[in-house]
Amino acid sequence: MPKMVNEFNEYRSKMNDKILADNNKVIKRIFNLDTNAYTEGALDVKTKELLGLVASAVLRCDDCVKYHLETSYKLGLTKNEVVEALSIATLVGGTIVIPHLRRAYEFWDALEDQDKN
Amino acid sequence: MPKMVNEFNEYRSKMNDKILADNNKVIKRIFNLDTNAYTEGALDVKTKELLGLVASAVLRCDDCVKYHLETSYKLGLTKNEVVEALSIATLVGGTIVIPHLRRAYEFWDALEDQDKN
Amino acid sequence: MPKMVNEFNEYRSKMNDKILADNNKVIKRIFNLDTNAYTEGALDVKTKELLGLVASAVLRCDDCVKYHLETSYKLGLTKNEVVEALSIATLVGGTIVIPHLRRAYEFWDALEDQDKN
Amino acid sequence: MPKMVNEFNEYRSKMNDKILADNNKVIKRIFNLDTNAYTEGALDVKTKELLGLVASAVLRCDDCVKYHLETSYKLGLTKNEVVEALSIATLVGGTIVIPHLRRAYEFWDALEDQDKN
Amino acid sequence: MPKMVNEFNEYRSKMNDKILADNNKVIKRIFNLDTNAYTEGALDVKTKELLGLVASAVLRCDDCVKYHLETSYKLGLTKNEVVEALSIATLVGGTIVIPHLRRAYEFWDALEDQDKN
Amino acid sequence: MPKMVNEFNEYRSKMNDKILADNNKVIKRIFNLDTNAYTEGALDVKTKELLGLVASAVLRCDDCVKYHLETSYKLGLTKNEVVEALSIATLVGGTIVIPHLRRAYEFWDALEDQDKN
Repeated sequence: MPKMVNEFNEYRSKMNDKILADNNKVIKRIFNLDTNAYTEGALDVKTKELLGLVASAVLRCDDCVKYHLETSYKLGLTKNEVVEALSIATLVGGTIVIPHLRRAYEFWDALEDQDKN
Repeated sequence: MPKMVNEFNEYRSKMNDKILADNNKVIKRIFNLDTNAYTEGALDVKTKELLGLVASAVLRCDDCVKYHLETSYKLGLTKNEVVEALSIATLVGGTIVIPHLRRAYEFWDALEDQDKN
Repeated sequence: MPKMVNEFNEYRSKMNDKILADNNKVIKRIFNLDTNAYTEGALDVKTKELLGLVASAVLRCDDCVKYHLETSYKLGLTKNEVVEALSIATLVGGTIVIPHLRRAYEFWDALEDQDKN
Repeated sequence: MPKMVNEFNEYRSKMNDKILADNNKVIKRIFNLDTNAYTEGALDVKTKELLGLVASAVLRCDDCVKYHLETSYKLGLTKNEVVEALSIATLVGGTIVIPHLRRAYEFWDALEDQDKN
Repeated sequence: MPKMVNEFNEYRSKMNDKILADNNKVIKRIFNLDTNAYTEGALDVKTKELLGLVASAVLRCDDCVKYHLETSYKLGLTKNEVVEALSIATLVGGTIVIPHLRRAYEFWDALEDQDKN
Repeated sequence: MPKMVNEFNEYRSKMNDKILADNNKVIKRIFNLDTNAYTEGALDVKTKELLGLVASAVLRCDDCVKYHLETSYKLGLTKNEVVEALSIATLVGGTIVIPHLRRAYEFWDALEDQDKN
């Protein structure tokens, strides 16, 4: 399963390179903002990461959820904290969020598996 | 093609077990509600199933559509009835629903194929 | 409160007239389809109306909800039936549907009040 | 402007009473869950409130945003913290979130004004 | 009716000032991008304005639609061109776009009326 | 990679045939409209294709994006023009559009590769 994490990151990073190579100003700046927005400010990075996760989950963007799960994992957020955030997403966004919850669980397991190896 | 039905159900049920094993109260109750909401009440189960199908289709949740297609099939709803419900979803939700309509047709075919074997 | 029903219908019908006067073919045909889609077919008109209502509710379109509530009311659907349909919408679409549920209740009351006068 | 807060709460509470009086089991349980989900758990109440706020903002539900703004205010979250959460919502959800940001600012001002009087 | 245009612009500009006064970097940059994205580039400004209009219409953001209608009007786009763009939005986004179409027509009329006075 | 284009078109056309064979009037007419809406009118076909592309991108429908990319490519729209349209979609729709941008880039590359062979 850790393969799942690598494949996700490789595709993501290969395509991001292609997009940024194109030098479209608007897109480049949105990519920059996407990095800056999650840095420490009035809120700490863990909270911000969870905010990004919940926003991604209710908007049902699997790739965005995976990205924020991996960052959350690296920041040391526990599974309990992540699941509690996702439970709010499921309540606010409804049962259509459940299939994304399944894939989020699968990806979190892959993150944990990768670490064990 | 019937493999499509089995694979969908196996993944769904494996991941649901993992989610429920975690004992998050909010998520567990939403799962419970999801079962209760479609039981006979002022409306009969067939109508409710079609309501769940159309809600899933306009929100463009393929897994939710598949789930409601399978239940609809088991309840004896005809293809004509299901397609008519999906036609309303396509009109209300627009042409972006069409790719989900394609996958819904494919899954319905898989359900019928499975039955023949 | 019955004023609420009249105002909604007057604005709706005045603006529809303006839109249709413009003779844009695509828009005109979508308007036509919108009438045809809810006529008796494999499914009866009451079921179809509820499908339109639930699709409108999960997509959180207040005006569409109002329109289907009024048609549901005229077709003789009971409040219990309508509320049960809306409960499925709230479960599938999540708590963000609740504000639309409040306005749906208010409009249904207005429909009942109008009838008493 | 504090009137804005009162009017919002009065309508909300009047309609919630009507909805709950109807005794639809599914809806009642979703209302209950909506209270339980934001209580202290693996995450503290302030973080959970911000998660609810961001989920509401990206899904562009003004009434949900207002509700979470008021609770955030009562919990002692600062304007800086709330705005930082909303900035993530605007980045993830795009410029279509901006009109909701305007109304969020207006409501936060109304909350502060109410407190001064 | 021209009042509708003024009121929209006054509220928009008053709240934008408040938001920008807060100096949140992410939000400020998104506001800047929002100006830059619609300037002449590989595509001319009229085409870009229509792209912004259609994106706003299918995402059902009335205030965004109004903003792009006003800019389209000022750029000299004809009603026919604007309506044709909106017809594509209605087809892609479904009948839930229709209530926004009504309000778009009303706002366009207000823009024309304002010009006559 | 050109295989990606063929596979997409084959599946699309096979399933469209099945759907149309069913003779559901509402669905058939929506399919017809989908062809008519993009023909020359007040706006030229290139502009209309870009409008369909941006509507599809902000609604995050990968298959719709692919379809409009292919037609844009055949109409002779340049990559610069298409990317500029997609940059507006990313700004209006937010960072959740980015994963769809990645897949759009991949598909555009496949279209160019196909042409070279």
